[in-house]
Amino acid sequence: MNEPLSEAPSVAPLSETELALFNRWWHAANYLSVGQIYLMANPLLREPLQLEHTKPRLLGHWGTTPGLNFLWLHLNRIIRARNTSVLFIAGPGHGAPGIVASTYLEGTYSEYFPEVSQDLEGLGRLMKQFSFPGGIPSHAAATTPGSIHEGGELGYSLSHAYGAAFDNPDLVVACVIGDGEAETGPLATSWHSNKFVDPATDGAVLPILHLNGYKIANPTILARIAPRELAALLRGYGYEPIFVEGHDPDPMHQKMAAAMDLAFDRIAAIQKAAREDGKTERPAWPMIVLRSPKGWTGPKEIDGLRTEGYWRSHQVPFSDLTHPGHLQALESWLRSYKPEELFDESGRLFPEIAALAPAGTFRMSDNPHANGGQLKRPLRLPDIADYAVAVTSPGHEIGESTRVMGDWLRDVMKLNLESRNFRVLSPDENNSNRLNAVLDVTNRAWNAETFDYDDHLARDGHVMEILSEHTCQGWLEGYLLTGRHGFLSCYEAFIHIIDSMVNQHAKWLKTAAEVPWRRSIASLNYLLTSHVWRQDHNGFSHQDPGFIDHVINKKAEFVRVYLPPDANTLLWTTAHCLQSWDRINVIVAGKQPEPQWLGLDDAIRHCEAGIGIWEWASNDKGGTPDVVMACAGDVPTLETLAAVKLLREHAPDLKVRVINVVDLMTLDSPSQHPHGLDDASFDALFTLDRPVIFAFHGYPQLIHKLIYRRANARNFHVHGFREEGSTTTPFDMVVRNHLDRFHLVSNVIDRVPGLATRAAYAKQAIRDKLVDHTRYIAEHGRDLPEIEAWRWS
Amino acid sequence: MNEPLSEAPSVAPLSETELALFNRWWHAANYLSVGQIYLMANPLLREPLQLEHTKPRLLGHWGTTPGLNFLWLHLNRIIRARNTSVLFIAGPGHGAPGIVASTYLEGTYSEYFPEVSQDLEGLGRLMKQFSFPGGIPSHAAATTPGSIHEGGELGYSLSHAYGAAFDNPDLVVACVIGDGEAETGPLATSWHSNKFVDPATDGAVLPILHLNGYKIANPTILARIAPRELAALLRGYGYEPIFVEGHDPDPMHQKMAAAMDLAFDRIAAIQKAAREDGKTERPAWPMIVLRSPKGWTGPKEIDGLRTEGYWRSHQVPFSDLTHPGHLQALESWLRSYKPEELFDESGRLFPEIAALAPAGTFRMSDNPHANGGQLKRPLRLPDIADYAVAVTSPGHEIGESTRVMGDWLRDVMKLNLESRNFRVLSPDENNSNRLNAVLDVTNRAWNAETFDYDDHLARDGHVMEILSEHTCQGWLEGYLLTGRHGFLSCYEAFIHIIDSMVNQHAKWLKTAAEVPWRRSIASLNYLLTSHVWRQDHNGFSHQDPGFIDHVINKKAEFVRVYLPPDANTLLWTTAHCLQSWDRINVIVAGKQPEPQWLGLDDAIRHCEAGIGIWEWASNDKGGTPDVVMACAGDVPTLETLAAVKLLREHAPDLKVRVINVVDLMTLDSPSQHPHGLDDASFDALFTLDRPVIFAFHGYPQLIHKLIYRRANARNFHVHGFREEGSTTTPFDMVVRNHLDRFHLVSNVIDRVPGLATRAAYAKQAIRDKLVDHTRYIAEHGRDLPEIEAWRWS
Repeated sequence: MNEPLSEAPSVAPLSETELALFNRWWHAANYLSVGQIYLMANPLLREPLQLEHTKPRLLGHWGTTPGLNFLWLHLNRIIRARNTSVLFIAGPGHGAPGIVASTYLEGTYSEYFPEVSQDLEGLGRLMKQFSFPGGIPSHAAATTPGSIHEGGELGYSLSHAYGAAFDNPDLVVACVIGDGEAETGPLATSWHSNKFVDPATDGAVLPILHLNGYKIANPTILARIAPRELAALLRGYGYEPIFVEGHDPDPMHQKMAAAMDLAFDRIAAIQKAAREDGKTERPAWPMIVLRSPKGWTGPKEIDGLRTEGYWRSHQVPFSDLTHPGHLQALESWLRSYKPEELFDESGRLFPEIAALAPAGTFRMSDNPHANGGQLKRPLRLPDIADYAVAVTSPGHEIGESTRVMGDWLRDVMKLNLESRNFRVLSPDENNSNRLNAVLDVTNRAWNAETFDYDDHLARDGHVMEILSEHTCQGWLEGYLLTGRHGFLSCYEAFIHIIDSMVNQHAKWLKTAAEVPWRRSIASLNYLLTSHVWRQDHNGFSHQDPGFIDHVINKKAEFVRVYLPPDANTLLWTTAHCLQSWDRINVIVAGKQPEPQWLGLDDAIRHCEAGIGIWEWASNDKGGTPDVVMACAGDVPTLETLAAVKLLREHAPDLKVRVINVVDLMTLDSPSQHPHGLDDASFDALFTLDRPVIFAFHGYPQLIHKLIYRRANARNFHVHGFREEGSTTTPFDMVVRNHLDRFHLVSNVIDRVPGLATRAAYAKQAIRDKLVDHTRYIAEHGRDLPEIEAWRWS
Repeated sequence: MNEPLSEAPSVAPLSETELALFNRWWHAANYLSVGQIYLMANPLLREPLQLEHTKPRLLGHWGTTPGLNFLWLHLNRIIRARNTSVLFIAGPGHGAPGIVASTYLEGTYSEYFPEVSQDLEGLGRLMKQFSFPGGIPSHAAATTPGSIHEGGELGYSLSHAYGAAFDNPDLVVACVIGDGEAETGPLATSWHSNKFVDPATDGAVLPILHLNGYKIANPTILARIAPRELAALLRGYGYEPIFVEGHDPDPMHQKMAAAMDLAFDRIAAIQKAAREDGKTERPAWPMIVLRSPKGWTGPKEIDGLRTEGYWRSHQVPFSDLTHPGHLQALESWLRSYKPEELFDESGRLFPEIAALAPAGTFRMSDNPHANGGQLKRPLRLPDIADYAVAVTSPGHEIGESTRVMGDWLRDVMKLNLESRNFRVLSPDENNSNRLNAVLDVTNRAWNAETFDYDDHLARDGHVMEILSEHTCQGWLEGYLLTGRHGFLSCYEAFIHIIDSMVNQHAKWLKTAAEVPWRRSIASLNYLLTSHVWRQDHNGFSHQDPGFIDHVINKKAEFVRVYLPPDANTLLWTTAHCLQSWDRINVIVAGKQPEPQWLGLDDAIRHCEAGIGIWEWASNDKGGTPDVVMACAGDVPTLETLAAVKLLREHAPDLKVRVINVVDLMTLDSPSQHPHGLDDASFDALFTLDRPVIFAFHGYPQLIHKLIYRRANARNFHVHGFREEGSTTTPFDMVVRNHLDRFHLVSNVIDRVPGLATRAAYAKQAIRDKLVDHTRYIAEHGRDLPEIEAWRWS
């Protein structure tokens, strides 16, 4: 069943001389790969291999590596022949031995890490550092020159590749996808990214599906379906696959060279048709399927057990080097690549082999897009003052915060359209999230069938919508990592779908910050709207505020959480986030009509501090309050102010201080987060001993987790989401979770001793009110009119 | 481009009489659907429609509903004709109006909810409750009879369907997949589940891809690629698609009836070939593609704007009923279904229409598998005593905990093989996680090409491995929800991939617990191994202990977290979890060789309490200790005991109490979690005022979040993962995160006043030791021999 399909090219583009050189490069890359996995000394086997030359713990992955080395070599041929800029993405998880080897052979590794020099000593360092304490991991990472893609968690290579290709018309992104990774959900849908590419204004992605047949311990699905089924699948995804299959190196080199020629010819033809001939139909982009043995060129058998082309080659084909015959097997394997024909006396790659690499930034290992920060241009941002909501008195005006933000984003888009470096993404929620205005100046990216009644679809649109949070996130990461800017809006509950991708991006940011030559990239910005409190209509499945909890576990330097309570604070926050770098900024804000509290000047002052007393809502007049009412989030702010108003009515003497938190991390200790307030400021706000009734957008324990070190921690009583969701009304959502004004007031009564005399009466009134509420919504299906019409003033 | 492909059947199986009846049923279902969305009174329009008959907030989704109603009707025909048991899964997110309508028409809804009776009053209740406070959500949910699938978050319908079909040879699961959902990653890869189905011993899944062309605001990809491209994609996934396309109801009924006949004929033929003729080749399973207008039979235009077949039909085609003409449009629309021809005077469906439904549990709305708890049989479990590790003295023996557990799981598998109700799943990590023994008694499920050198692959294997956490999770959920048992093992960091699926399952469990007729299902059991502390070799990308944080935000009744420190505690915990129900059990345990602390009897006592003092490691002899050393997790336990040993050496007079926590939720307040220790017991363990040095497996703040209410909270000093990961050695991982014995001892010195005199000396010794460690691993690539060889006794 392994015969190639008919479309595999049968020409032989390589001369005998080239073929010999190609094999030597490949041998060199494979040799260095095996060396990295096994050796910590004697890098060129100038003396017989001894146990002490090998690493005590053998780690790192051989299986996918020779295939990656093979592909890198053949892409280099294309780059040299065509002066094409190619970015390489290594999807196979643990392919670093190959990627690092190829990067070293191109000289780039030594340029970035001078101590890993192009000589015997450098070779020794190269080998020792791999999967070694203080060294480098066994997958491509932020430490790998030429890489924008961490190979640890699988699934995101192809969406990263497309993200890199958008708005980079002169770039080809060669994306190797392992047949293991191809089984993941995120990868399986990211093939459809080709419906969002404009051949005229975007670059091209060349997917290379690498079938080596085995994962850690199991065969892979795509390697074990009939070739015609596989071809149908890939054509169904919209690609024209070119198959390169086999084992014997010389014919494989010829086939791959021909396949690469064909693929790049097709890419050029597609781009010419779109750019010069005005062709508008979506093309079938070429892709390559490489079917080669796992652990290609490695030992065929070890201890009588099948190794090459089998799962035993996945990581280290044999590990216990004290086992009889293993050390010899390793030495034979290494010597099979003939290191003496690859590296000169000093340990330097022979120049005729080195000449196979392109020069300077044409080397994939030094492609400027892979260190995107160096290409990044700041966004041109309109003045938020021109979009601010006029607030005549706090809470008087009603506005849809995200719609105001949408107006501003429209003009961000407009000002940067010419630079083509800003995209707005969402899983089919752009308009639902009230960012419609952006479509006044651009369209939704779409390159599939279109009907005349369709709405704002265009091949070069800069709003990206696909019903896949994974793909949105992957595209955006690829776009940011190559030096551009973006903004992702999502329903709050469903952003958990990409929890794990956020982890990996946070890890990338932390590691990249420790790599001196990595330049800062634009922040990853989220707007979470359609949030837990306003998903009353969609019900429990749409209600979850836990993404904040997830994000703040990441390294503090890189994460920020903002809860702007109204439109002007949201404007400031959004503008702030779009000017920041190397951060993961989470903004949670409502899209429903809601009171507007702060005029722009007040909003700016409040946001710059991140937290502050709202004097206009407080009546402690600079003295010590009886109770602190704190709030974070738009709905909690509303309920807190409604509670304060009730308290003024029922207990006019009570001294209440209202604190609003926009920048959640101000609550954290300064030893834990750079935005954490110092203790003196914190204590000045929250007092040392007064009850703090805290209304929070998310899970209450999160606040306790942030403030447990503070002096007044014991007196914090936090109201938030208690996992009590349902299909109901907005006000009933807060009632069910005790975040409503009545429960807040009731808690104040319980906590402030001086109120005891009135307590019974007030609590009964509150209970009656809640009974009214429950009866009313059951009959009318909406909140009590007095709740809907409530105003602060 | 919308012409059907040639393979669409062209017979006309329905007589004129049947056709008329089919239309009446479909009208009735559509009528009830529109009624649920819009009406709260006047359910059969016995009086002219008035504004007060309509709901004040219009919610719920029309777009997908008529298609679902159409499919339900046609599946009923098949069920009646063939006496086939069919489970219906509604992938389209908000299809509840249709599902609930069909369920009501079958009489089931009234059987489960007698107040929603088969009369005018019941019809009124049916309509009012939909998307109404205290009512039901707009997607199928635990409250929907016949459903195992919540329609809120998209992506999991097909993996749920396969999970339900495994080991149910007489069941056909009809799974409707919306073209929106089809864009998600989890759905895109779950098509490949057909490579894991055994036609002989498993049931069948009939995927029905419903192309209605639009999502919330965008066209869908699969509706906008050429039909031949779509057919290639589906064939590439291994299916033989049958296309049913059109708009005009009568021919569409004929086409769908023919398509259903063809599909069920093929399923029967495939099963016969496998079951009677011994055919072993993987078949191309049939599937149906239904291309019909979004909001089919709804208003063509509203206010001059295209509605049917467009995104405007997605939710509520028109909402403001005070707008001129809208109320009339609604009445005309409702009356177009001729309710007087559907329901009799009393409001009951006419018997000739009702006769289209199958009887009893053949109704899809009453399929017993949809309330799987009623089919659940407890697992037969071997006595853990037969697998226990002998522990001669604490810490003396070394064992691989998960390997011991694997031996026990092997025999769980063996004892239940005949019942075929237990599966073990992992994303290609079964052997890596040391559960190899299970393969002694079963195989890996695999129905794709197999070579003679393959390892333990078989069509009827009960170990499920695909490199997709989403698919593993979806299969397992489907399997549990239909009354069976399972166990999922996963690398700890990558379990975050299914964070959002866990949310949804937790929500299902909570909601189902509130539905009186839902029966308990087996718990969702996780083993997280290859955990953060032993991913030193794979590096930072593989290091994340945050899944615990995610899970404990869910409703306390349903979540449990266990951190057994050795093999015997792991055995007890695993056996406990496999006997529990309606829980999400997270077990974190190591797979590497590590000291074994407790013999079986001690392990049982310790696990039953969930937390306890390890007297053998303590020297406070029942008095008040100077310091409490607490630990949770295998590696933290090891480091804590090593620290205690150092303290004995350096400060023999210091009274140390060692507490080990297996059941993490014992730390929580009893008001928050049912396992939470009461304050008296907690204080007795942790004292009221002594420093507690807590070594924790995960993020330290999680412990603070659990214990902030406790009397001694301020004196807890927690060491855990600080997001300092790298490729390094196991011991260096703990050092980088200050979880190692030296940092623990150093903290004790800082916290216990009496130690001040010795502090300088001891801390210098510790610093020296850490410098030695750093030097040693940089040179040797492994931990100091004294660390590797460390023993408690």
